[in-house]
Amino acid sequence: MASPVTPPRGMRDILPADKARRERVLATVRGVYRAHGFDEIETPVMEDADRLHAGLGGDNEKLAFAVMRRGLTVDDLRTAESPLELADLGLRFDLTVPLARFYASNRGQLPTVFRAIQVAPVWRAERPQKGRYRQFVQCDIDIIGEPGIIAEVELIAATSAALDALGIPDCSIRVNDRRLLTAWLTRHGVPATLQPQALITIDKLDKLGVDGVVDELVTLGVAHARELFEALAADEGDSWSLLQSPAFDGSPALDDLRALREALPELPLQFDPFLVRGMGYYTGPIFEVAHPQLGYSLGGGGRYDGMIGRFLGSEVPATGFSLGFERLIDLVQLTETGGAEDAALVYDREVAPATIVALQAALVGEGARVRLLKRPKNLRAALEQLEAEGFCRFAPVAREAAPDPALLDWRRLGAADSTTTEGD
Amino acid sequence: MASPVTPPRGMRDILPADKARRERVLATVRGVYRAHGFDEIETPVMEDADRLHAGLGGDNEKLAFAVMRRGLTVDDLRTAESPLELADLGLRFDLTVPLARFYASNRGQLPTVFRAIQVAPVWRAERPQKGRYRQFVQCDIDIIGEPGIIAEVELIAATSAALDALGIPDCSIRVNDRRLLTAWLTRHGVPATLQPQALITIDKLDKLGVDGVVDELVTLGVAHARELFEALAADEGDSWSLLQSPAFDGSPALDDLRALREALPELPLQFDPFLVRGMGYYTGPIFEVAHPQLGYSLGGGGRYDGMIGRFLGSEVPATGFSLGFERLIDLVQLTETGGAEDAALVYDREVAPATIVALQAALVGEGARVRLLKRPKNLRAALEQLEAEGFCRFAPVAREAAPDPALLDWRRLGAADSTTTEGD
Repeated sequence: MASPVTPPRGMRDILPADKARRERVLATVRGVYRAHGFDEIETPVMEDADRLHAGLGGDNEKLAFAVMRRGLTVDDLRTAESPLELADLGLRFDLTVPLARFYASNRGQLPTVFRAIQVAPVWRAERPQKGRYRQFVQCDIDIIGEPGIIAEVELIAATSAALDALGIPDCSIRVNDRRLLTAWLTRHGVPATLQPQALITIDKLDKLGVDGVVDELVTLGVAHARELFEALAADEGDSWSLLQSPAFDGSPALDDLRALREALPELPLQFDPFLVRGMGYYTGPIFEVAHPQLGYSLGGGGRYDGMIGRFLGSEVPATGFSLGFERLIDLVQLTETGGAEDAALVYDREVAPATIVALQAALVGEGARVRLLKRPKNLRAALEQLEAEGFCRFAPVAREAAPDPALLDWRRLGAADSTTTEGD
Repeated sequence: MASPVTPPRGMRDILPADKARRERVLATVRGVYRAHGFDEIETPVMEDADRLHAGLGGDNEKLAFAVMRRGLTVDDLRTAESPLELADLGLRFDLTVPLARFYASNRGQLPTVFRAIQVAPVWRAERPQKGRYRQFVQCDIDIIGEPGIIAEVELIAATSAALDALGIPDCSIRVNDRRLLTAWLTRHGVPATLQPQALITIDKLDKLGVDGVVDELVTLGVAHARELFEALAADEGDSWSLLQSPAFDGSPALDDLRALREALPELPLQFDPFLVRGMGYYTGPIFEVAHPQLGYSLGGGGRYDGMIGRFLGSEVPATGFSLGFERLIDLVQLTETGGAEDAALVYDREVAPATIVALQAALVGEGARVRLLKRPKNLRAALEQLEAEGFCRFAPVAREAAPDPALLDWRRLGAADSTTTEGD
């Protein structure tokens, strides 16, 4: 069994330095969201298969890992009409479907307007590729129970504050409202059944260009497609002036978007009339956050007023903003904290465990982080390794060492010092 | 779809107050372990099925949730000879098998003596019952690469410090060494193949009593079973005096256990010659922590020197201590922190989102946690709810409110105050 041993395909181990960095970043995000009045919750990583596959997850449903029923027999295999019949559970592919289920399960114990934080892994069986993993962390905030635009204002303010706290200040946030495009499509005679497909086409604007999208829309039966793009041709100046376009006359979304813009004058919000976002469940304002150096979004979200009703049986307004943590982590510039008190106790083989552990306890009691190191042959290499891990002080504990930490010969680790102590 | 909506069978949602409490407790445990020189790591929740089912997990292997291969066809179902053939992955049932796999995968990037923290959920498809869940959190520390008893001293010192920090100081730690009983069995002619079964029998001492265990052992062929129990009849005084029993003469475990006892003179360690612990992989010192008020253990662990070699191909010594977080959390007495700065902004419906969010931002900037509340019909009930959630200050934001937070009319929440503001 000495063959290469790896984590499952598309998944990865998190090593100590990386784990510490990830936890610091997550603590920052959680702290900002909590300060903005949100509460963290947790749901099981699995949901019942029929809830996961209720049609709310779009294409992600197909990527769900399915968990087999327990106690299956070979007979069950012979008679099943599809593999999914053998699965009763699945790993969540996002945090929105579990949140809707959570709210339906626990509504009686939650405030009327419920602000949720979820910082947790999700799983998708995507084809593994660079920078894309089958287990990854999402940071979601959602507001359930508030129908007004104030909810989106809160979400965007909190998310923006989190990005600031992480030292990623130059993100722009593109905003649109699903009601604008669907109202235009309706007014131009596109039946509701065709509208989702039309939105999917418009979502491909980056790839296809205006001509490509117009061609596809015309094929779909959207006769006046070109008019839309001409009416909304990118303004040289303020993107928000596009709200005055006759294309959007009378939409109830206009007041909301204007209030959103006014409420957050300091933030780099842009109106993007062609922002669609993939999921079918969005019903109102939608948004996406992008960094100028990156070709992809760091996160996004929007209002999904119909979704919770699917589980609860009665309609509840809801809106959410999700940050893709794995994309965020590489951009983060956090000052490293601690380390100054970190200490290594380098003990000789003959020193009694009682002596070592008493010293460690005393130093921990003073607030230090203390790692034990049995004096190795190559002390210098070991000390350099410790320094790389943030242990900046070390103390030799010899056979005759006094157990009083105050008497320890603390030295700042350096090449000269480590050479002198190496001659053992 | 208005039927009762619940989490999957045997799993549960964690609501805000409970989540906050759990995270505080976990932060305390992590902090203590880090201070003792351990590093946190993370592995994927899934492992390859053949690694999970390598015989290292004992009975827990049977409880693993199996994850179906992607892209299965009905043909695959017809030809499979067992359900497990359809699964290529499984959810981890403990943190030890993944750690051994992690170490084998990443050894080149880890220190020679590696001290790991894992605080993470595991899954077991057990029959749901009160207080037992199918997803639950374990807190493990392990030391890999140190063959000496100093490793166990470190583990027990750190675990004991964690329990102290959580305000659970009265735990006793029972200690034994697998080598003592196996040496005795060998000396009395019990072949190695029968010894695991003999240990399982001895593990049932609590249930069967001495006579029951002796009967079972005799049936197994352990002729002198009663001698063992007579030689080790519970001493009235110090349990450690049993180490002098002739039953253990010459065992290499004796020096280790004595060194352990001497190294931790302040801790309530007890020697228990009949402590076995379930897992087959233990090879040396084993330990279990119990609280006087509880009939079950809070955690335990031991040395498992052979296990990592199963993945790595070369032997590496290892020992670990696991705390059962779900059992711990109910015992914890942590002082609640924060709350004094928590504030709710109660705003009138007509106030502009810009005004509200600017106030919130200013207060958050001063270190407050700020929740927004649209003034409800029953203000008193809403304020009481907020107070229960830790929001101790509130400020009304009326239409004409000044946006300067310094001018806000902060009031200590009380029955009298809330009555006066209720008359809206």
